[in-house]
Amino acid sequence: MEERTKELLRRFANADRVALSRILSMVENGHPDSPMILDNLYPRTGKALRVGLTGPPGAGKSTLAEKLASEMRKRSFKVGIVAVDPTSPFSGGALLGDRVRMNAVSMDEGVFIRSMASRGSTGGVAWKTLEVCEVLDAFGLDRIMVETVGVGQSELEVADAAHATVVVLVPESGDGVQAMKAGLMEIGDIFVINKSDREGAEIARKTVESALELKRAENGWRPPVLCTAALEGTGVKELYEKIEERLELLVSSGSIERRRRECVSSKISGILKARILENEWERAQLSKLVERETARVLSGKTTPYKAVDGLLKDMR
Amino acid sequence: MEERTKELLRRFANADRVALSRILSMVENGHPDSPMILDNLYPRTGKALRVGLTGPPGAGKSTLAEKLASEMRKRSFKVGIVAVDPTSPFSGGALLGDRVRMNAVSMDEGVFIRSMASRGSTGGVAWKTLEVCEVLDAFGLDRIMVETVGVGQSELEVADAAHATVVVLVPESGDGVQAMKAGLMEIGDIFVINKSDREGAEIARKTVESALELKRAENGWRPPVLCTAALEGTGVKELYEKIEERLELLVSSGSIERRRRECVSSKISGILKARILENEWERAQLSKLVERETARVLSGKTTPYKAVDGLLKDMR
Repeated sequence: MEERTKELLRRFANADRVALSRILSMVENGHPDSPMILDNLYPRTGKALRVGLTGPPGAGKSTLAEKLASEMRKRSFKVGIVAVDPTSPFSGGALLGDRVRMNAVSMDEGVFIRSMASRGSTGGVAWKTLEVCEVLDAFGLDRIMVETVGVGQSELEVADAAHATVVVLVPESGDGVQAMKAGLMEIGDIFVINKSDREGAEIARKTVESALELKRAENGWRPPVLCTAALEGTGVKELYEKIEERLELLVSSGSIERRRRECVSSKISGILKARILENEWERAQLSKLVERETARVLSGKTTPYKAVDGLLKDMR
Repeated sequence: MEERTKELLRRFANADRVALSRILSMVENGHPDSPMILDNLYPRTGKALRVGLTGPPGAGKSTLAEKLASEMRKRSFKVGIVAVDPTSPFSGGALLGDRVRMNAVSMDEGVFIRSMASRGSTGGVAWKTLEVCEVLDAFGLDRIMVETVGVGQSELEVADAAHATVVVLVPESGDGVQAMKAGLMEIGDIFVINKSDREGAEIARKTVESALELKRAENGWRPPVLCTAALEGTGVKELYEKIEERLELLVSSGSIERRRRECVSSKISGILKARILENEWERAQLSKLVERETARVLSGKTTPYKAVDGLLKDMR
């Protein structure tokens, strides 16, 4: 480990926010010291509860996250907001031209906002998000909200890693059947019709509710459907209470232990798979062999599938 | 290979569209016969040129794809449209509540529209998309348009696999700096300000153009910035001509050979990696060992990173 990294870890342990930012960047960019950093911080993790906020672009997830953060601050919780949604104003809102809003929440020392670069990161965004959450957890945050568009394309869905998932819809997207198609009905613990001052909110709420009737209650939890108007703050307190209720049930029912086990297990599998491939690639000099087989495929002597069969036979 | 699959392949070879649909579903869902199907079809691939359409949700990519398909049909090209964008009306438009539009293009026998389920597919959407394109290629299509939101999260970006990438923006998102942040400037061969009947289109065009001035021309190609209003059909013919111009340059400069080589090479690597992991997982009974180490991590005896180091040492 570089001397600079050790120094960063010392400052991190003293709650230095700048050190936290640096360490997050190192982890996100896959710095060589990154595995050692995560290893070092691992014993300090396990306290933070992760809340996923997911839904279509423009549903108001970032505003909702801000308002929820204020509620969490009232309970003196330290709060993290991680924006994975490429259209989130937190992550630069690059695609829709939004801007980061400077406001009460982002000036609060007890709130840490982090946006993830979704493009060009190595190893998958969902994976990096989990590592970012781990670092924030080790920093001593109590609640981490992760904002995603909820149409994950990665091997490990971000939502799977959340302790409670809030699906945010708007009246216009309030067709329960459509949301169901997108897989949102399956992943939500709590449903929100945001921007509920708009027309059709009540109809949307009822549609989602009836779509949810097909869903089996788990540990006695039937996903509630709430209405909020995040900009005005309407319904946010009620939503927050529902989230805490859900988290408490997770703890009291022991489900949180199962979640933690699954999370550790997929973490070990993930690291192991990456390392096996790395080692095997080097050992068998596979880059060269792939190059050779590529030439054979291009000249029509074989197909990619037959080429792989041949390579695997040679490796044994 | 199942008898039913052989029958499907026979019908596929006779240009049976129903067989094409069935085979695409098998490939997308990872049917056990899928590798053999792809292997069987491989020698027939290599003709289709892939055009990526990428940009923020709501930029009008689907409408543009339809109109471009009509232009392609005028040249008697057989056309495929693959919608990977979860907000595309082609892929159900689940999130924004759009509907598939039944229109001239979707009734045309020379146009084949396919939407990809972005959630729950195994092995990554980008990878599946490439396989779907391969099947469509083998079916004899000349042009395949792939519609994505352009903020890829996968190891293999869909855009990397396109022969020409069109970045679709709207006047409101027309901040060149913002688009650059999102990585769209790097991947675009052609830029389009769609919905250019709206205010600010010309300013948006100029902003994108000046942002592009920093980009080095490649093989004498400087990405043009065009204005379209797809719904009205304005500018679509000009856009299509630019796309064909770009594709012709790709062929005449020999770059298409390099692209093909890269594509074959990453295909072989991809299949090989998946197979190595599968084999190794079974051989070393890694599922059991991961379970054992998970328990050790949970009881605080080790960390995930140290656990993996130990497992790798044992495997040698």
